[in-house]
Amino acid sequence: MRVLILGGDGYLGWPTAMRFSARGHEVHVMDNYLRRRALSDVGKESLVPIPDSLPERAAAWKEVTGGHIGVTEGDICDWPTLERLFMTFRPEVIVHYGEMPSAPYSMRDREHAVFTQYNNVVNTLNVLFAMRDITPQAHLIKLGTMGEYGTPNIDIEEGFIEINHKGRTDTLPFPKQPGSLYHCSKVHDSVNIHFACRTWGLRATDLNQGVVYGIETDETALDPRLATRFDYDEAFGTALNRFCVQAVIGMPLTVYGKGGQTRGYLNIVDTLQCIELAALNPPNESEYRVFNQFTESFSLLELADAVVRAGREVGLDVEVDHLPNPRSEAEEHYYNPVHTKLLDLGLKPHYLSETLIESMFDAIRRHQDRVARDHILPETQWKPRTAERTTAR
Amino acid sequence: MRVLILGGDGYLGWPTAMRFSARGHEVHVMDNYLRRRALSDVGKESLVPIPDSLPERAAAWKEVTGGHIGVTEGDICDWPTLERLFMTFRPEVIVHYGEMPSAPYSMRDREHAVFTQYNNVVNTLNVLFAMRDITPQAHLIKLGTMGEYGTPNIDIEEGFIEINHKGRTDTLPFPKQPGSLYHCSKVHDSVNIHFACRTWGLRATDLNQGVVYGIETDETALDPRLATRFDYDEAFGTALNRFCVQAVIGMPLTVYGKGGQTRGYLNIVDTLQCIELAALNPPNESEYRVFNQFTESFSLLELADAVVRAGREVGLDVEVDHLPNPRSEAEEHYYNPVHTKLLDLGLKPHYLSETLIESMFDAIRRHQDRVARDHILPETQWKPRTAERTTAR
Repeated sequence: MRVLILGGDGYLGWPTAMRFSARGHEVHVMDNYLRRRALSDVGKESLVPIPDSLPERAAAWKEVTGGHIGVTEGDICDWPTLERLFMTFRPEVIVHYGEMPSAPYSMRDREHAVFTQYNNVVNTLNVLFAMRDITPQAHLIKLGTMGEYGTPNIDIEEGFIEINHKGRTDTLPFPKQPGSLYHCSKVHDSVNIHFACRTWGLRATDLNQGVVYGIETDETALDPRLATRFDYDEAFGTALNRFCVQAVIGMPLTVYGKGGQTRGYLNIVDTLQCIELAALNPPNESEYRVFNQFTESFSLLELADAVVRAGREVGLDVEVDHLPNPRSEAEEHYYNPVHTKLLDLGLKPHYLSETLIESMFDAIRRHQDRVARDHILPETQWKPRTAERTTAR
Repeated sequence: MRVLILGGDGYLGWPTAMRFSARGHEVHVMDNYLRRRALSDVGKESLVPIPDSLPERAAAWKEVTGGHIGVTEGDICDWPTLERLFMTFRPEVIVHYGEMPSAPYSMRDREHAVFTQYNNVVNTLNVLFAMRDITPQAHLIKLGTMGEYGTPNIDIEEGFIEINHKGRTDTLPFPKQPGSLYHCSKVHDSVNIHFACRTWGLRATDLNQGVVYGIETDETALDPRLATRFDYDEAFGTALNRFCVQAVIGMPLTVYGKGGQTRGYLNIVDTLQCIELAALNPPNESEYRVFNQFTESFSLLELADAVVRAGREVGLDVEVDHLPNPRSEAEEHYYNPVHTKLLDLGLKPHYLSETLIESMFDAIRRHQDRVARDHILPETQWKPRTAERTTAR
């Protein structure tokens, strides 16, 4: 298959590109280094060193494996660049990771919120029009997030729910209650993609992914130059990855609020499995399907406990700290999302284990001197002080 | 009350501004003449002549009634302009009509689709941030559309629906299936506004309005210079208004497809009533409420029949033509949306009557020489030929 990876320089994008290349597919990556720039603007960088550019990464991949990965350094919002790429590469599968992925980034201020929604909505519209006019038979695999659903008091279905109401029945999109303006942007994308499938006959898989953890895949392990980036800061670090860094550097784990916030999680190696399963089992024409992509649910406190226990095994004395929650979210809630569709396609989950956490400790230790301690605590408040003052009135 | 009307130069915006001013409120209008430009770019203009600018309209209002309407000629997407207006006018009510309102416009091509979603999403985000940081107690009255819901096979509730699922219950946002990329943009707005209310304590009323018809309000009738614009073209004309123009000029009424498409409709004078009722009965802090704003449902064929009957009364021989449907929509479907909340607040509907249609004929006849016949038929196809060819394969 000809596989186009949008956002191919990212934490998940680069390992995905290598995986498809290793399987013998024709792979092209596109990225405008949004994440690198957002971090370097504030003096941050990936914990694990990575090559300076996608051409260097692709060259290393070629040297190590002989595989070819094509590269476009460009912005998906830039239509002429995207159009040219679709005309020349003619992708059969488009894996779209290429969005601003951070909830705290989107909540920082008006500019960051507007940029996040502009970037994500417009670049996904561009992809849909490119598919419509150039490769209408292609399969879009779009990275959404479990955070689109929020935490309703009923079981979360995979994208659609049958509703019985006043004696009639219909199967309708599952109601969304996103938890940040970034999460809202993913809901907007879902609405647009669903519309494009209904109206233009496109085929798409929307992967409502949980929080990904882990640092190593079969391909990143081949050579240090093939490593994927690893973030632990407020904006781009995710819960377990950040906890592991805190454990290694002797900082208490920062649980926001009570810690009852429960979310779906999965290992990065399972992300790659899921993307591959989706690509090998495409939807029908006009079909918009949604998979809830995670393997286990944990509360923040359960995650923190797992890190404490794993730390004890290797002689780390890990403490847990409760910070005032910078976000607006329920800290105790019902959470039982269905996630069977990927299992039905053959997903073999790698569940969270102390061994995995210990291997993350090892990887982090190798780069421990690169940790910037002052970038870990949350700074962005969901409710800025002006709004707090007013609503407390 | 200090009332800010965004999109105050429009079909509904200008009459709304006059109504609030006539009631003794302090009124300010903002508009960037988007609609005028979109039409004049293709050589079209309002059927009813209107003054060349908002300052001229406000001057006429002053001369006729003594009332003052403040004017800002500017773009809501332009943050410094919007911020300055909020700082100086400090609105207590914001009526937000200021969006690109046309489904066919949004479906014309990629550029129009991207512009529609960019404009509507970003300008509403700007309004939300202005409220959060400058006037957090203000009440946002946002014009949404019944088209956000699509045509599900169950009764459409007003914004939220109680769902019983696997033994548990929650009241959740009503699922949306918008019918164009413009309608998608309104869904995006609803998601963002709901989020802002939950998170920042803002108060908002989202008016999912039906199709508005009519040409005259108490205030437009005072002086020809106070008239509101009236569009009948593919992009900005709505069903009944367009049918009345066709009846007057002797063109068959253009029903798209079978004509079983059923929608909610209301008279422009009821739009003004609804906005006033919403403003006088604000929601609580943090409350996001949704009203389905229409008074009656009609299928396209029922509307066409009403125009045929009214035409007969005044000696017009009106024919009905079925065009191939340029849109993707169900042409026969269940449709029973709830619309009781505005009635509960005191709405006294003006139902569609032959008398009303005949008075529209009269108003249209006065400007009959301005009708551009070649701008009435639909040109924009929801499914462009390339997509058709492919899906027919």
